[in-house]
Amino acid sequence: MSDELGRLMNELGQRAVAAAAVLAGADRRLRDAALLAAAVELRAQSVVILEANALDLRAAEAAGAAGAMLDRLRLDGVRVEAMAAGLEVIAGLPDPLGRILEEKKRPNGLRIQRVSVPLGVIGIIYESRPNVTADAGSLCLKSGNAVILRGGSEAVHSNRAIHACLVAGLVAAGLPADCVQWVPTQDREAVGYLLKGMTDYLDVIVPRGGKGLISRVRDEARVPVIGHLDGNCHVYVHAAADVNMAREIVLNSKLRRTGICGAAETVLFDRAVLATHAAPIVGALLDAGCEVRGDEAIQALDPRVQAATEDDWYTEYLDAIVAARAVDGVEAAIAHIGRYGSAHTESIVTTDQAVAEHFLAGVDSAIVLHNASTQFADGGEFGMGAEIGISTDRFHARGPVGLEQLVSYKYVVRGEGQVRPR
Amino acid sequence: MSDELGRLMNELGQRAVAAAAVLAGADRRLRDAALLAAAVELRAQSVVILEANALDLRAAEAAGAAGAMLDRLRLDGVRVEAMAAGLEVIAGLPDPLGRILEEKKRPNGLRIQRVSVPLGVIGIIYESRPNVTADAGSLCLKSGNAVILRGGSEAVHSNRAIHACLVAGLVAAGLPADCVQWVPTQDREAVGYLLKGMTDYLDVIVPRGGKGLISRVRDEARVPVIGHLDGNCHVYVHAAADVNMAREIVLNSKLRRTGICGAAETVLFDRAVLATHAAPIVGALLDAGCEVRGDEAIQALDPRVQAATEDDWYTEYLDAIVAARAVDGVEAAIAHIGRYGSAHTESIVTTDQAVAEHFLAGVDSAIVLHNASTQFADGGEFGMGAEIGISTDRFHARGPVGLEQLVSYKYVVRGEGQVRPR
Repeated sequence: MSDELGRLMNELGQRAVAAAAVLAGADRRLRDAALLAAAVELRAQSVVILEANALDLRAAEAAGAAGAMLDRLRLDGVRVEAMAAGLEVIAGLPDPLGRILEEKKRPNGLRIQRVSVPLGVIGIIYESRPNVTADAGSLCLKSGNAVILRGGSEAVHSNRAIHACLVAGLVAAGLPADCVQWVPTQDREAVGYLLKGMTDYLDVIVPRGGKGLISRVRDEARVPVIGHLDGNCHVYVHAAADVNMAREIVLNSKLRRTGICGAAETVLFDRAVLATHAAPIVGALLDAGCEVRGDEAIQALDPRVQAATEDDWYTEYLDAIVAARAVDGVEAAIAHIGRYGSAHTESIVTTDQAVAEHFLAGVDSAIVLHNASTQFADGGEFGMGAEIGISTDRFHARGPVGLEQLVSYKYVVRGEGQVRPR
Repeated sequence: MSDELGRLMNELGQRAVAAAAVLAGADRRLRDAALLAAAVELRAQSVVILEANALDLRAAEAAGAAGAMLDRLRLDGVRVEAMAAGLEVIAGLPDPLGRILEEKKRPNGLRIQRVSVPLGVIGIIYESRPNVTADAGSLCLKSGNAVILRGGSEAVHSNRAIHACLVAGLVAAGLPADCVQWVPTQDREAVGYLLKGMTDYLDVIVPRGGKGLISRVRDEARVPVIGHLDGNCHVYVHAAADVNMAREIVLNSKLRRTGICGAAETVLFDRAVLATHAAPIVGALLDAGCEVRGDEAIQALDPRVQAATEDDWYTEYLDAIVAARAVDGVEAAIAHIGRYGSAHTESIVTTDQAVAEHFLAGVDSAIVLHNASTQFADGGEFGMGAEIGISTDRFHARGPVGLEQLVSYKYVVRGEGQVRPR
């Protein structure tokens, strides 16, 4: 790694730590004022942002990008307005800092409070979508954390323009501009510095992007990571399911949006109800344009069903493709999910409450649902307001990661001269 | 690393994962029964344990160990009884699993609960003290986590004998013996496997030991770590402190036990009260046999005070030595602690409530106290029953790590057929 880059990254780190110390003590009115001022600035700079985005789009097209990749990169008036509105929503959410999480008085008179405080400095490494600059930056700001943003090089102009609006908001509110920093070089080694070379400055890293990025972060990071791996989600149609409800839930779980991590990838059907439940639901999936890859029992239901291989049970398609399999009851369903799933989100459809509770307790996933679509796996749908991602980790944060997951805590103890005996 | 060791460690990992799946679903009565049966077994095997310990002590003496090292290794009837009683205490604590941490009903009728679940498989790497085998093993068992224990080679016979009692307790309660495993080889590369080679099996590693171990774990671990670095704790005697209270708190914070991480290492005195406060308190420390290393202002108070160097402000003595310094008010005290401290535990002594609140908010440490000894930094004193250590991390767990910090959570969502619109 070059000395120059090292100096630059060290300086970013030192500035972030200094800004974090100020931000941690900043009243919520200041943090919210910065968010609201940034929203005003985003709208005012809309033309500038779209011009910057046009540069990124032209470069991406010249480099051969197309389809979904270009769509992720593209901004328009609606998307800029959505970013601005998102900042206002976050400004309106309850303050995650200074919450008394626990309070007790000990027999010796000590009064102990556990109080929420910021994590410190957060590094965000992301790809393509420029709106992450606003979304992630604002969640960190609201939760009192300084942030160092490292976006993809394909969105460099867009990210720079959006970052400038966040800085304008901070300055307008009288907060340090360094609360939200953006790595000002496209040197690819900067990511290596964030992961390995800035342990003195960074408290946590949040990767937002594809599997390649996430697994690099997991392998190389020397600071804690909040990340999600894949969402290989399941719907299990139990023998006692209402068939109409099961069809609606399966179709919605798979097809409402196929590209989100909460989309279902495998449907499990009880063998006892293949004719009554699996046949019409598989037919409805096929009719809706979804490719179905089934085991022999599912293939026998409809000639359009393809043969599934062992790999299919592990696959997160993120597309209009679904794997389907017959199982012999709830224990077999739980075992399949435990073996092939990614512990993200799974749903059971059944009218049998006892079976449902057995499934909810027995499936070890971040989110388990009864009679509801897996597509509810989303911080907004959980009433968390906004999220930075959905964690499949078990450590610190599991499931949707919103403001309340971006904090730590401290113990505040008030006494009257107590010393410890013995 | 050898193939044979790799196979052994892999097998430990697979067994732990299988046991964890059973343990996660085990009712608290089973977990508590295993703890109580292990306590019975520890008492019944007391002679066997002490004989094993005698082997370890003899080997350690032959290798030249002495003093504190031998004392940490030594067991006697009282210590075995303390281990057994500790298991009974943990059995009596509230169940950390299945707690409903949060509950809400969404406008669409979905009922969402956040429920505590085990972390999964915990690796504990520790040194010298054989009682950690019982203490850490039982905290993991109570919290529904399978554990792989790796104790120091100097305590191999003692640890094996204590581990056998925990296994006997598991078997008596009908739980898998593999819930508490003990690495059965003294091959030093086994630690490397735990840190780097078992990411598929381990959910978290907890190191218990000296700085060398902790920093190796931080550098090498590829799984999350709950660890504490040093406890460079401070007492700040503010100008408005009651001098008698300040003396009691300083003496207790420093000298009650000098070897624990919550012991104070530096005392800060307001310059305005050097004559009235610092002089008698420094004199009392010296009279009690404590070495005092001071800046020029403190040296001027008593000829017995040594000169402090810059290094002293960073040092965790864990001994009857204290650094002392004059500061100009609460902001200077906060700045000194922020620069030199380890964010563990700090106390202010003052009768001025506003200054106290400013200190409690402004000092970014796991535990901040007003008018109380730093030696209260202890899970038991916080009413947590038992702790596995005190974390100076900000991620997942901060401060004392008890049963409630050894869990994760999952979201359980109950619906009546809801699908997500749009």
